Amino acid sequence: MRAAVYYGPNKVEIDDVAEPEPTPGTVKVRVGFNGICGTDLHEYYAGPIFVPTQPHPLTGQELPLTLGHEFSGTITAVGAGVSGWNEGDRVAVEPIYKCGHCGPCQAGNYNVCRQIGFHGLMSDGGMAEYTVVPTSMLHTLPDDVSLELGALVEPMSVAYHAATLGDVHPGDTAMVFGAGPIGIGLWFALRGKGLEDVFVVEPSPTRRAAVEALGAATLDPAAVDVAQLIADHTAGAGADAVFDAAGVAPAVATALACVGSRKPMISVAIYEKPLETPLLNLVMNESRIQGSLCYTGADFEAVIALMARGAYDTTGWVTRIPIDDVIDEGFEALHAGKKMKVLVAPTDSPGVDPSGANA
Amino acid sequence: MRAAVYYGPNKVEIDDVAEPEPTPGTVKVRVGFNGICGTDLHEYYAGPIFVPTQPHPLTGQELPLTLGHEFSGTITAVGAGVSGWNEGDRVAVEPIYKCGHCGPCQAGNYNVCRQIGFHGLMSDGGMAEYTVVPTSMLHTLPDDVSLELGALVEPMSVAYHAATLGDVHPGDTAMVFGAGPIGIGLWFALRGKGLEDVFVVEPSPTRRAAVEALGAATLDPAAVDVAQLIADHTAGAGADAVFDAAGVAPAVATALACVGSRKPMISVAIYEKPLETPLLNLVMNESRIQGSLCYTGADFEAVIALMARGAYDTTGWVTRIPIDDVIDEGFEALHAGKKMKVLVAPTDSPGVDPSGANA
Repeated sequence: MRAAVYYGPNKVEIDDVAEPEPTPGTVKVRVGFNGICGTDLHEYYAGPIFVPTQPHPLTGQELPLTLGHEFSGTITAVGAGVSGWNEGDRVAVEPIYKCGHCGPCQAGNYNVCRQIGFHGLMSDGGMAEYTVVPTSMLHTLPDDVSLELGALVEPMSVAYHAATLGDVHPGDTAMVFGAGPIGIGLWFALRGKGLEDVFVVEPSPTRRAAVEALGAATLDPAAVDVAQLIADHTAGAGADAVFDAAGVAPAVATALACVGSRKPMISVAIYEKPLETPLLNLVMNESRIQGSLCYTGADFEAVIALMARGAYDTTGWVTRIPIDDVIDEGFEALHAGKKMKVLVAPTDSPGVDPSGANA
Repeated sequence: MRAAVYYGPNKVEIDDVAEPEPTPGTVKVRVGFNGICGTDLHEYYAGPIFVPTQPHPLTGQELPLTLGHEFSGTITAVGAGVSGWNEGDRVAVEPIYKCGHCGPCQAGNYNVCRQIGFHGLMSDGGMAEYTVVPTSMLHTLPDDVSLELGALVEPMSVAYHAATLGDVHPGDTAMVFGAGPIGIGLWFALRGKGLEDVFVVEPSPTRRAAVEALGAATLDPAAVDVAQLIADHTAGAGADAVFDAAGVAPAVATALACVGSRKPMISVAIYEKPLETPLLNLVMNESRIQGSLCYTGADFEAVIALMARGAYDTTGWVTRIPIDDVIDEGFEALHAGKKMKVLVAPTDSPGVDPSGANA
């Protein structure tokens, strides 16, 4: 079968590899779509970062391996001892391997497991025609949630998890900094939680246009005094929750100037280095910065339920490509900012437009 | 009467001013001791910062005014309409003026009142023989809490408030960065909350010695790998709460390297400028930075109750001086690091050693 195999920096090849077969407790999934994540780009351009160079303690795998941790698909075979899952079941895969016995795992926060592994970074993942995963990773996709949406459950769960840590309620004013896929996911999640008053702050006109087309109110930080606007908008109270999905110092500074007293800024960005951070704002306001990492199963279920209600829309920001185009139309196009989110179709799924445009 | 009047940077004079008399709803207090706060030093060397240069909306006062917001004393006269307070009552004063109608005030968090004022920064304060305060600021000192301890209730409440925001429980491991008066107050507060396992991280040998003499375990960040030591000490879990009472980048970086998953770093420092802050630690750990500002009445009551139980000790870190020495033995000695905490005796109270040494 075809698979996008990662060998190291700037080396991903579409190889012909052996089809994996299910072992006890696992299922074989025919991948529908697999999204390319920012993490995959970091591995491609600057890795290996997460991909292990010696056997991972939970998966036993190391470089080289097949990428892909954001995927949906259809079960084609089940391993020994598997019950409750059958051939033909449509699934989204929650790709976390957890140790189960560290402090965070015992507290149910396995997203911060001390030994965490990801299917598609620490084991052969979903950027292939087939992949094999333990049943603990499976979430059923309802009939009215497409495999395309199913591949977005993972990144949308990253955003949903952050939205939940924001402790928001209907009627609140929230702000999202950065209109990349996670920022867009935050907008959907906050709307899904009943918020009407959400501002997306994004300097790029292209990204602003994309999220505006989905119905979002946006602010251009180069054109308006964002903190003053929010102060006026909230009668001086500040925003109830602000979300940093940008990961750059100006976004953090503005976010902390906007957040209300005793309210949170949720960090759901990968900061490449320590940023100058105005901690004094936190002190004077008794506000806080809360980190958010990945998701747990509850986030997957919440996102899938929202998708079933029609709360997510891929128009204008999601592009589907065939696996053979993964370098040029995937990594390179994303890196150059020409695309926002790319879903790779490892098999000749219906609906894939080889031109790379949205179907 | 004598009062330490602030006129602007580097200008505090011991003036002979008129004794204030109580107005309706207020009491006149003969000041026992008044502590010099880091905020006072900032006003002296780099002010006016908090001291208003036009009438403050809540107090109507402006420069010049009498400093002093950390004080205890004895009521000598009560204003019209005052009930429940009498001449001879010994009190600690919680020096916050609040607007009462902003969002934080309505939520009970008047320590972050949008218009907050402090008695002794926005009105004539306690560095004088007498001062007049509204009864809403009064807290009774039990017979077994001295006026010297009473003057420390305010800074100890700053620390106690931060300790409470740390959400700590007996059995937890906590860390305090910085062994100044607030760091020492954190150590007392955490002990008072039942914690046995508290590390105070402090590079200065003098300050380490002072807090060690009180019974604290200390770490010298120049001599040990603090993060590794805490990782080993907690079997990899990290500290349950870390407190930044230092306000410098190395302390913040080490604190964030020590804090456990989903646990807080409480910031109770005045950061003079934005610091390089490793926010990625927060994300990977889902930990948080929580700002802490001042206190409310509950903190005052908790500290006074702990003082009545004998939980606070002034040995080795608190110096008492007469008001005439406030510049040389107060501001200058503190600024030069020659003293840790100075209490000014505006009247000729018994127990004041004119040499400036501890009685």
